[in-house]
Amino acid sequence: MERKQEVSKAVIQRLPRYYRNICELKAEGVQRISSRSLAERMGLTASQIRQDFNCFGGFGQQGYGYNIDKLQEELGAILGLRAGRTAILLGAGNLGRALLNNFDFAASGFRLLCAFDADPALTGKTFGGYEVRDSSTLDAFLEAHHPDAAVLTIPRGNAPAIARSLVDRGVRGLWNFTGEDLHLEGLGVPVENVHLSDSLMTLCHLIGTDTAEE
Amino acid sequence: MERKQEVSKAVIQRLPRYYRNICELKAEGVQRISSRSLAERMGLTASQIRQDFNCFGGFGQQGYGYNIDKLQEELGAILGLRAGRTAILLGAGNLGRALLNNFDFAASGFRLLCAFDADPALTGKTFGGYEVRDSSTLDAFLEAHHPDAAVLTIPRGNAPAIARSLVDRGVRGLWNFTGEDLHLEGLGVPVENVHLSDSLMTLCHLIGTDTAEE
Repeated sequence: MERKQEVSKAVIQRLPRYYRNICELKAEGVQRISSRSLAERMGLTASQIRQDFNCFGGFGQQGYGYNIDKLQEELGAILGLRAGRTAILLGAGNLGRALLNNFDFAASGFRLLCAFDADPALTGKTFGGYEVRDSSTLDAFLEAHHPDAAVLTIPRGNAPAIARSLVDRGVRGLWNFTGEDLHLEGLGVPVENVHLSDSLMTLCHLIGTDTAEE
Repeated sequence: MERKQEVSKAVIQRLPRYYRNICELKAEGVQRISSRSLAERMGLTASQIRQDFNCFGGFGQQGYGYNIDKLQEELGAILGLRAGRTAILLGAGNLGRALLNNFDFAASGFRLLCAFDADPALTGKTFGGYEVRDSSTLDAFLEAHHPDAAVLTIPRGNAPAIARSLVDRGVRGLWNFTGEDLHLEGLGVPVENVHLSDSLMTLCHLIGTDTAEE
């Protein structure tokens, strides 16, 4: 695909929402959609959608709307969902196990290889089909398998040092649930910090103002 | 506080980020910060920050920067963090238990009352100090205690019907982890849909383009 310009973070963060909505439309049997209908569904404006898509060369023909199959394929390619990226998960506590048991990593573009934990009571067990290995074997694993990304579900205090060590050993991206803002650490790789509290605080505000839903 | 105009969803969604950064600055011992320094820290522009804060009457004096204590208090009030809101959690599976055990609901403005699950093996147990009650007692609980919000960590298929039933019984907001896009259901109350896959897909894209971190 053709990338016309430097794409802003805001546009990039909308890409998964576009992809998710297109997948849902496909599951509903829709084959083609106008930018106006897609905008209504997503709470955006049609012109914003056209502008966003134009960052990647545009995906439609004026007046014909977007072909759902084609859009799904193009957005998937831009997101890198079929690039065969791999990941490991560090920290098999409740949150780590919840992700191992329930989260569809493949649907977000990652093949999860295994998990690591320092607790001997957990090593050797499997959750959601993923083995938990002893943390002491992590460095050897990184050297042998070069996972692209690491999911951090470890305690917050350990996060900066472990993140630094992972990046030094070739990990190219972090999905960070620790609550520690790793983008402040200057790691030089993309970090997605998950702050669940942001979303609950937003709800707290919206309940008070009684405004409409998302 | 004075609210000057209808505030956009985008501004509202930045409020928790402002609040989180202000809390971190306070923990670091900072007492006053300019819009420029805050902007640099958050990856925004100073004019965007001033514009956002002006939606609520502005919090600073031109040229003096923002007082951290005052900003924390004002943002906390706008978010409704001290309004004494209450919540229940439905579904004490892995994800539900991860939240019960680890998530600080109070820091996001909610007093969690208890959890509910249909599995008899879970009822009566406590996680993170919260009791899991039998789902059959939910309606009576709602009538007696009127929780403001419900956290949905139930299976996806059950989500629309249960959400509707909760809203019919007076619940005023939903924190939705089910993957089902409840804002499409026209419930008439605020819903915060948590889509973890959006953040992982963003990471998948960023790893591919090798752009800088958040």
